Amino acid sequence: MSALTAENKKLLESASVSTLTNLMLKRGFRNAYMHGIAPLSTTDRNMVGPAYTLRFIPSREDLDTMAGYASDQNVHRRAIEECPPGHVLVIDAHGSSRAASAGDMMVARLKARGVAGIVTDGGFRDTADIEQLAFPAFQRETAPAATPIALHAADLNLPIACGGVAVYPGDIIVGATDGVIVLPAHLANEIAEEAADVAAYEEFVAEKISAGHSIFGLFPATEASRKEYESWRATKCARK
Amino acid sequence: MSALTAENKKLLESASVSTLTNLMLKRGFRNAYMHGIAPLSTTDRNMVGPAYTLRFIPSREDLDTMAGYASDQNVHRRAIEECPPGHVLVIDAHGSSRAASAGDMMVARLKARGVAGIVTDGGFRDTADIEQLAFPAFQRETAPAATPIALHAADLNLPIACGGVAVYPGDIIVGATDGVIVLPAHLANEIAEEAADVAAYEEFVAEKISAGHSIFGLFPATEASRKEYESWRATKCARK
Amino acid sequence: MSALTAENKKLLESASVSTLTNLMLKRGFRNAYMHGIAPLSTTDRNMVGPAYTLRFIPSREDLDTMAGYASDQNVHRRAIEECPPGHVLVIDAHGSSRAASAGDMMVARLKARGVAGIVTDGGFRDTADIEQLAFPAFQRETAPAATPIALHAADLNLPIACGGVAVYPGDIIVGATDGVIVLPAHLANEIAEEAADVAAYEEFVAEKISAGHSIFGLFPATEASRKEYESWRATKCARK
Amino acid sequence: MSALTAENKKLLESASVSTLTNLMLKRGFRNAYMHGIAPLSTTDRNMVGPAYTLRFIPSREDLDTMAGYASDQNVHRRAIEECPPGHVLVIDAHGSSRAASAGDMMVARLKARGVAGIVTDGGFRDTADIEQLAFPAFQRETAPAATPIALHAADLNLPIACGGVAVYPGDIIVGATDGVIVLPAHLANEIAEEAADVAAYEEFVAEKISAGHSIFGLFPATEASRKEYESWRATKCARK
Amino acid sequence: MSALTAENKKLLESASVSTLTNLMLKRGFRNAYMHGIAPLSTTDRNMVGPAYTLRFIPSREDLDTMAGYASDQNVHRRAIEECPPGHVLVIDAHGSSRAASAGDMMVARLKARGVAGIVTDGGFRDTADIEQLAFPAFQRETAPAATPIALHAADLNLPIACGGVAVYPGDIIVGATDGVIVLPAHLANEIAEEAADVAAYEEFVAEKISAGHSIFGLFPATEASRKEYESWRATKCARK
Amino acid sequence: MSALTAENKKLLESASVSTLTNLMLKRGFRNAYMHGIAPLSTTDRNMVGPAYTLRFIPSREDLDTMAGYASDQNVHRRAIEECPPGHVLVIDAHGSSRAASAGDMMVARLKARGVAGIVTDGGFRDTADIEQLAFPAFQRETAPAATPIALHAADLNLPIACGGVAVYPGDIIVGATDGVIVLPAHLANEIAEEAADVAAYEEFVAEKISAGHSIFGLFPATEASRKEYESWRATKCARK
Repeated sequence: MSALTAENKKLLESASVSTLTNLMLKRGFRNAYMHGIAPLSTTDRNMVGPAYTLRFIPSREDLDTMAGYASDQNVHRRAIEECPPGHVLVIDAHGSSRAASAGDMMVARLKARGVAGIVTDGGFRDTADIEQLAFPAFQRETAPAATPIALHAADLNLPIACGGVAVYPGDIIVGATDGVIVLPAHLANEIAEEAADVAAYEEFVAEKISAGHSIFGLFPATEASRKEYESWRATKCARK
Repeated sequence: MSALTAENKKLLESASVSTLTNLMLKRGFRNAYMHGIAPLSTTDRNMVGPAYTLRFIPSREDLDTMAGYASDQNVHRRAIEECPPGHVLVIDAHGSSRAASAGDMMVARLKARGVAGIVTDGGFRDTADIEQLAFPAFQRETAPAATPIALHAADLNLPIACGGVAVYPGDIIVGATDGVIVLPAHLANEIAEEAADVAAYEEFVAEKISAGHSIFGLFPATEASRKEYESWRATKCARK
Repeated sequence: MSALTAENKKLLESASVSTLTNLMLKRGFRNAYMHGIAPLSTTDRNMVGPAYTLRFIPSREDLDTMAGYASDQNVHRRAIEECPPGHVLVIDAHGSSRAASAGDMMVARLKARGVAGIVTDGGFRDTADIEQLAFPAFQRETAPAATPIALHAADLNLPIACGGVAVYPGDIIVGATDGVIVLPAHLANEIAEEAADVAAYEEFVAEKISAGHSIFGLFPATEASRKEYESWRATKCARK
Repeated sequence: MSALTAENKKLLESASVSTLTNLMLKRGFRNAYMHGIAPLSTTDRNMVGPAYTLRFIPSREDLDTMAGYASDQNVHRRAIEECPPGHVLVIDAHGSSRAASAGDMMVARLKARGVAGIVTDGGFRDTADIEQLAFPAFQRETAPAATPIALHAADLNLPIACGGVAVYPGDIIVGATDGVIVLPAHLANEIAEEAADVAAYEEFVAEKISAGHSIFGLFPATEASRKEYESWRATKCARK
Repeated sequence: MSALTAENKKLLESASVSTLTNLMLKRGFRNAYMHGIAPLSTTDRNMVGPAYTLRFIPSREDLDTMAGYASDQNVHRRAIEECPPGHVLVIDAHGSSRAASAGDMMVARLKARGVAGIVTDGGFRDTADIEQLAFPAFQRETAPAATPIALHAADLNLPIACGGVAVYPGDIIVGATDGVIVLPAHLANEIAEEAADVAAYEEFVAEKISAGHSIFGLFPATEASRKEYESWRATKCARK
Repeated sequence: MSALTAENKKLLESASVSTLTNLMLKRGFRNAYMHGIAPLSTTDRNMVGPAYTLRFIPSREDLDTMAGYASDQNVHRRAIEECPPGHVLVIDAHGSSRAASAGDMMVARLKARGVAGIVTDGGFRDTADIEQLAFPAFQRETAPAATPIALHAADLNLPIACGGVAVYPGDIIVGATDGVIVLPAHLANEIAEEAADVAAYEEFVAEKISAGHSIFGLFPATEASRKEYESWRATKCARK
């Protein structure tokens, strides 16, 4: 299994989440989109990177004290320092927004370390500050309460559940205005390439529709529309 | 029953949803507002038009294949091509956001055909592109997954449920920042006229309140406040 | 118990909700943040003020008529006229968005009267107009239906539940982008002062992080980081 | 307004909740049934009695200590000792089952004091023991956690919300297998009488249906079916 | 497509819902079980029969009066009189338990007419009486309120959504303690036969497990375990 | 840390869940009760045993095939064979009832192996058969769908979330009619002993209440009531 190429990463940065769900469905995957997870603010390019995971369980009053939180072994803080640059930190908070999955300082540190983004099925605190950092951050619901009130960081880089989807370390995570989708690592390159072709076809369709064409015969594509599209594409590329 | 006049349509385009719920309540209707449905982006003028309906049921793996989806008889695509210009396409997705009620190309086609807007109690895919089309679109929650994953288009223009409200084909649908309200076709003209009067009264009240007047004696209106309002209105019209 | 000082009020106007939940947790309070309540629009400064409360119960058709609503004894309208200037009107709508907790005219009147803000665990109607008033307003979900459809104003200034938190009249309510937190009246002054110190420390941390420092040794603070921070602060104050 | 007579109380003890919702609807009341509240165990006769109310708000760590709980002024314990015999204790727990609205000892005391039943929109602890007491008890969901974990008893015998319905002290509460309905005090006598007639008619209908008659012409009643029913009833009474 | 044979109907009457979901999954169907729908009371034999459907939309105050309800054209009452004997009446109440999908008299009439059962994704009123009729009835939540408060019967025998599953008229509905599953009409005979074999194998496994055998090598079946099972079955049949 | 003694295990088998939440609260633990988890059928004695954990994540179509399910390395089946006798198998299904956490054959095997019980925050299939096995089983909602439709067994005996509570391997799990509570392993012996004393005191209180005594002065206990209770207990023990 080869890693996602730089070229394909670029293609995924402008792919649409809906195109990616289509390409996943075509391969038999019906549950790749994280339900109920939205971006804190919208971005020009998609967040793209391999998953590095953090798993929270509910906190317990004797184990999750502020003192314990300060320890160098604290798994929550280790996640922030150990998530590799270019990766997306994906957090399984078992859907809880009773406490923060992360705050602005943690997000600032991720950004400083070159991490690609952060996703939680819980929520963040300091959301206004996170928005200003312009760092890709996706959550279910704002959650300002102090982490130990409800969450205990259990382990790093195990397979997790996030937004109802399985996330295996190394899966390619794509986040956009529509939300977050998970691509199995071994399929990411081929899906990226196919998505670029779909996007070009959709650009062709958009032109036709704005010129008054019906969606019948265009969407989904027919043999005829594919042929027309290819000559349209050839012309277009020639012009560039 | 006469159709909504062009003049009254214009009045509804600037009516407030809350005023319309009041006027519906006055006539005994307690359940006209669609709960949990919000605009993708806000617009200057309200979306107004008669309802044309589409009903989804859950999909079934043997019936809802991509091949079947391409058929000319596909009810989902027929809805996009057959919804009359000036109408609002209202979709009963039984509240499901497990798959898209429509995407940007379908919405672009509705816009090209002169349709007035689209409403679903499920959700759309390609929401950023739909926002850019500046076409009135109302949903419960973004839903990028491919339609056949969860939805099967069953029929067109039957009475449906949407956001907990009954929608009969031809009912007048009004959508604004606050959400969507359904006016029975035979009441739309009289409600539009009454709403315009209420709006004028509220402008009068707003002036009084910003001048320091109490809401007692103003809101709700009293005989005295109505009299004052009418002279205010007369002066105002004279000035124009 | 001394009232919140003007100086401390100013400090709370720029405090972060997440810092305040930390300071509450430190004092043993785990349930001070209102879950699921968000601002209608974001503001530069936080909403800060003592709570004045209104409690809704479900409406009953014989008691909650439009005629009754017009009475001078109507508790809903009394809340708008009697909430003291500088206070925050906090509404227990038992979480219901089946009808409006308030509309734009009521909010305009609160603003004219110098009230500091309004919070409901239900929702508002005329949300676009309320946003234009630039008056701090926090809700769970937009609710344009006429109030008597679902809500009856029962009483004023009793202890209430709002967003899952106890609110006693006089508690200090702080509202920001992240949402709303309730500070017991007798703790507000000391928390305000401590929050200002935390904010300064976080500014110091933000500088360190953007310079590439790890969060270990900085967050949470260590003895060493506190010492460094204090000299940083001294220099900074000197420069001003 | 006359109190519920002993005779009418007996009629309500065998009335069906569905008949009572019909009779309420006929008088314009659409929201009298408590949604989501079920009996702990089924009983032969309905629970019937005037409402005595208790209102909980969320607890706060400094006010809701075990020590405070032991005080003679504790409103939770006062409710148990002060709810009048023959009344139903109706509890507004703002829907929370994070802590117990009552336990077996409190229920045993209510039974010893001749109270008619207990209803909460939260839940009870010791549910097996409460079932053995054979005391009418209705709840949303079992809630064994210690009361001060989440609930603070705020006041007694104010109008409250319970299960989405307004409950005024003195309203007649009827609880059966189907759940709980609230009858305004001034309508209880006339509704009780009408319910008895409906029940007799339904007995007549049940006989006809088991004899193979269609529901058309029987349900709802027609003039002809009413006539037949009346002679059936006369015969039946004569036989007794 | 041949109808379900009497013999296969008998097999389905003792099949387990979990076996049926396995056999559906094997054929590619992942969404055949109705979520959140439970039997009012448990029965010895499963409910089995072809679906006859009724669809409710929300009611509207001017159309859903008690007078209209009495009409011979009332679709709700027609469903009760027209559902064919041996069929299961399946109701799409768009998940609403704000009003009754049916009551005891309607159910008594269905029983008298030889209908096989009733399923709703809303709820029933008179649940204690329905249990006494010992007629198979499945619901989401008890719903005693008068039907016109929230429901309008729209049409008969169209494809519907029920409990998140598509139900086409004629699909074979199987209801048991675990709930309700929908079998496409053309697969019901083959699934019934396969289910009988699975049930026999499970009886064999149960014997082995109670004798201390591990589930490895037994469940799922291996070639060896199938061979052993077949001789066990032969012996057993011989003995009978 | 010593293991739970046989004697204390017996005491916990008759302790009430509500008493245990009180004793946990007294030690500062506010979140020990699993919300929304109920027994399939009630039992005379509580389920008591140390936790052995299984964690599910969402399934993925390429990894969770029926073939993979049959493997000897399948973690789901390993959990059934490896959970030690006397332990409780506690399952983190991330709250999903889209597929079965276990079925009757797995439960029969657990029983044959001497396991003490099974708990899931998802659900079981074959619930009628599990009830007949009279094996303690607790779930959120019945879930008959085949496991690979929605669940993938990820790992064994890690700390997990179940019903909103942290469960560490070895924690003492107690299940009764009221539901399930988690006791930290190192506190189980002392809590068991204290619970026995509380139960005796409650028996004393129950006698007093049935004799007409007020709960004031009895519940919570006072110095006087403790003294009276001790002589009551002494007399009682003497009699035995």
